[in-house]
Amino acid sequence: MMTMKGIYYDGRDALYREDIPMPGREEGESLVKIRMCAVCNTDKEVRKGYRPDFRGVMGHEFVGEVLESPREDLIGKRVVGELNASCGKCIYCKTGRTTHCNSRRVLGMSHKDGAFAEYMTIDTGLLHVVPDDLSDEIAVFTEPLAAALEILTQIHISPDKNAAVLGDGRLALLTAQVLALTGLDLTVIGKHEEKLELFKPFAKVAAKGEREGYEYVAECTGSETGLPAAFELVRKKGTIILKSTYAGKLGLDMSMVAVNEITIVGSRCGPFEPALKLLSEGKVKLPPIELYNLKDFEKAFASRAFKAGFAL
Amino acid sequence: MMTMKGIYYDGRDALYREDIPMPGREEGESLVKIRMCAVCNTDKEVRKGYRPDFRGVMGHEFVGEVLESPREDLIGKRVVGELNASCGKCIYCKTGRTTHCNSRRVLGMSHKDGAFAEYMTIDTGLLHVVPDDLSDEIAVFTEPLAAALEILTQIHISPDKNAAVLGDGRLALLTAQVLALTGLDLTVIGKHEEKLELFKPFAKVAAKGEREGYEYVAECTGSETGLPAAFELVRKKGTIILKSTYAGKLGLDMSMVAVNEITIVGSRCGPFEPALKLLSEGKVKLPPIELYNLKDFEKAFASRAFKAGFAL
Repeated sequence: MMTMKGIYYDGRDALYREDIPMPGREEGESLVKIRMCAVCNTDKEVRKGYRPDFRGVMGHEFVGEVLESPREDLIGKRVVGELNASCGKCIYCKTGRTTHCNSRRVLGMSHKDGAFAEYMTIDTGLLHVVPDDLSDEIAVFTEPLAAALEILTQIHISPDKNAAVLGDGRLALLTAQVLALTGLDLTVIGKHEEKLELFKPFAKVAAKGEREGYEYVAECTGSETGLPAAFELVRKKGTIILKSTYAGKLGLDMSMVAVNEITIVGSRCGPFEPALKLLSEGKVKLPPIELYNLKDFEKAFASRAFKAGFAL
Repeated sequence: MMTMKGIYYDGRDALYREDIPMPGREEGESLVKIRMCAVCNTDKEVRKGYRPDFRGVMGHEFVGEVLESPREDLIGKRVVGELNASCGKCIYCKTGRTTHCNSRRVLGMSHKDGAFAEYMTIDTGLLHVVPDDLSDEIAVFTEPLAAALEILTQIHISPDKNAAVLGDGRLALLTAQVLALTGLDLTVIGKHEEKLELFKPFAKVAAKGEREGYEYVAECTGSETGLPAAFELVRKKGTIILKSTYAGKLGLDMSMVAVNEITIVGSRCGPFEPALKLLSEGKVKLPPIELYNLKDFEKAFASRAFKAGFAL
């Protein structure tokens, strides 16, 4: 049996293995040779047990080359791919919400092997061709940038208003750049001076926000302190965009939401084509990814770089 | 000194008094003789200490007659009035959000005597003339109906989707009728069979909703169990309209909001003119109000009728 190298979640921990069976293509799938893949916070959460039922190859942010496909025009092409394979039949698929499909299979998270391996199969409809002028090192940011762009598919962001981004990590940097492309007055609120430097070309930066000072507040801290802070910062009739996820329940004064007529919008996966377009045009800029060998995955997971990943 | 009868909150309890000084008009205000006023849940909350700094005449849902006004065309007219007197200068006033004015004075709740009395003064700009064909008994519902209509000013309700209203009280009945006017598929979820009868002309009624079954869920229970229930009932990418207010913090799984891309919209005071128009056209129907004498306010506050109030 053909085997490959990869990072495998066995229900307890992430393991580097060289004996993972080569994936077999199902109907409609393409076989992709992974060129580069990146570690997302979600991967770290999977490792900690965020998806207790999952067993398999981890990872979902990748750039690869199509080796086999029912679409011949894709063979040999460089591609990125969406996470969520959908059934096409449920209420969510039939109403254009395929990323919320009731029986979706999610790369490296749920019922589907992911991208931390030499090869991966994926629904062909999830693939997007990477423009030639876009390097792997940049294209590997397509998925997280798409997630930031999801905000613009959900709500109208007016350039005449102002916004605060809470947080200074990856998600914050991508979200802030997407918001800044509208031209609005943007403040980024974070604790890490060296990280805040990255935001200065397009935003004001601050350690503390102005109470009730912002029409939009994008909560990108990844921490449970973020949403209560957003409650303090948002204007009445303003909008909080909730990007952070974390386990457990938050104690929240929801009467304040009703009385002050706050809108809270949860936001997750987004559209790939505009992300590829913006990256290709250089309108969103990113610090370099720090690359490792698959077998050094512990270092990649522990990296404090803006983004760590694997070159294959 | 001229005095009048009224219900007064002294910081500890509601009191019936006959020695309340007649209110003096400030610049821009009108003097209104109260004809009828109604008890709102908020009045009960004020009595319980919801507005600890407030001292004065309670009540904010009223129909009155204008006795004195800088607008001569209003004198002798029957009117209803909005709650929130605004400063015209703060960020909220300057951006069309006068009900959220930073230094607003709120009838019967904050820095302004209310309507549970023989006379009241009010900013003239807050008054709306009641059409002749509209009885006091119906017109007194203008303010709560306006609050239900606020939803339609905040979000687009598509008649092609479905909605659930959680709760079977006053707020639920008004909200449900407003939503039903769009023609959408509406289910009301409540516990009281006799109350649910009122909803049957325009909605399905149920004791329990369908899990993940509704695009819009309007939380009108007034109870802290409502929002967690709404989380269960709303579809992914759906919208929860939060009308209930209650003291204290709720323990909520906000990751579900992000992952399922739920929108939560807090909703409060709304537009009076469309409320008067719908009441006048008979498009919103209401059970009769139960009327008391001001001095029997204990009975009115304890009433389990759909709505209790005072005729003067």
